[in-house]
Amino acid sequence: MAEQGTRRGRPGYDLESLLAIAVKLFNERGYDGTSMEELSRKLGITKSAIYHHVPSKQELLRLAVDRALDGLFAVTEEPRSREGRAIDRLEHVVRRSVAVLVERLPFVTLLLRVRGNTKVERAALARRREFDQLVTDLVKQAAADGDLRTDIDPAVTSRLLFGMINSVIEWYRPRGGITPDALADAVSTLAFAGLRVD
Amino acid sequence: MAEQGTRRGRPGYDLESLLAIAVKLFNERGYDGTSMEELSRKLGITKSAIYHHVPSKQELLRLAVDRALDGLFAVTEEPRSREGRAIDRLEHVVRRSVAVLVERLPFVTLLLRVRGNTKVERAALARRREFDQLVTDLVKQAAADGDLRTDIDPAVTSRLLFGMINSVIEWYRPRGGITPDALADAVSTLAFAGLRVD
Repeated sequence: MAEQGTRRGRPGYDLESLLAIAVKLFNERGYDGTSMEELSRKLGITKSAIYHHVPSKQELLRLAVDRALDGLFAVTEEPRSREGRAIDRLEHVVRRSVAVLVERLPFVTLLLRVRGNTKVERAALARRREFDQLVTDLVKQAAADGDLRTDIDPAVTSRLLFGMINSVIEWYRPRGGITPDALADAVSTLAFAGLRVD
Repeated sequence: MAEQGTRRGRPGYDLESLLAIAVKLFNERGYDGTSMEELSRKLGITKSAIYHHVPSKQELLRLAVDRALDGLFAVTEEPRSREGRAIDRLEHVVRRSVAVLVERLPFVTLLLRVRGNTKVERAALARRREFDQLVTDLVKQAAADGDLRTDIDPAVTSRLLFGMINSVIEWYRPRGGITPDALADAVSTLAFAGLRVD
């Protein structure tokens, strides 16, 4: 079989390496614009070899966006996200979200492009909204505590914060430039202390 | 002719209304994914009627992204962007950029999705870089004046600022919710004064 032939000399894939290549392709061409046929060509294995690892393209998408979402929700479970003053918990969530974004850059990039065309995408959007709500609740609580300014609507604050954080996918590249920790510091300092020196 | 037939009873288009519909379609389906054929169907006029207004799809793209870019560059020409301390000029540019984004939402949305596949797109990206450089220079000058914190790299500050501003296209809808002025206040306050109350 020709397809088996092209496989010779190529490394085998486990689910992890297969997923990494699929996500790269989805990010380059769009999820809708990428067929399992193209993925199999890119991998140099047959479609049935892909189906040995994963039952469908949707399942690849689900695994990928859950990788991003599980990372963000794990942040909300950390002790420093759950204990202490709301402002400090919020700042911790912001800093750690930057870290998750950098660690899982291709997965978060894919998540942020999801538009809700399929059941998997709608489930991902629902989990994103749940995360946003957790952040908005922290903003509200911090404002109620008197630790966070009250002249911006909490939902707008939350959107601007995550707008800034998520924009990092547009330009951040892990090699060269700012380290993940310095990036988390920059986001947190800009957002909580502001740029202006009084 | 059938195409002429479908035109009956429809309003005529001028370049402005044609451009608005083209940009809406480009934003929905992607510029590459939208053919002049589809645009003519959407408009209910023939392709040659479109070519009466504009010589090519590329020219529609150029007009659209220039609408966004001209708005941003006009901001940098305003007296308050050119006179006074760098920190205040930067804050003015930020506030007015939010206003341009809101006023020209579909055009800015299209601009921010441009990836450089064509000459028009590469020219747009070059102008975006030029605008970013103007902002980065203001950040540097404000830091040199002692008015802006020096613990964040100026290029990173500029990217985070415009990451926050540009993220507004993801959720802002002109009707209902926050007004453009309140949004500009929110962005400016968050960025320059920070969220934390000391």
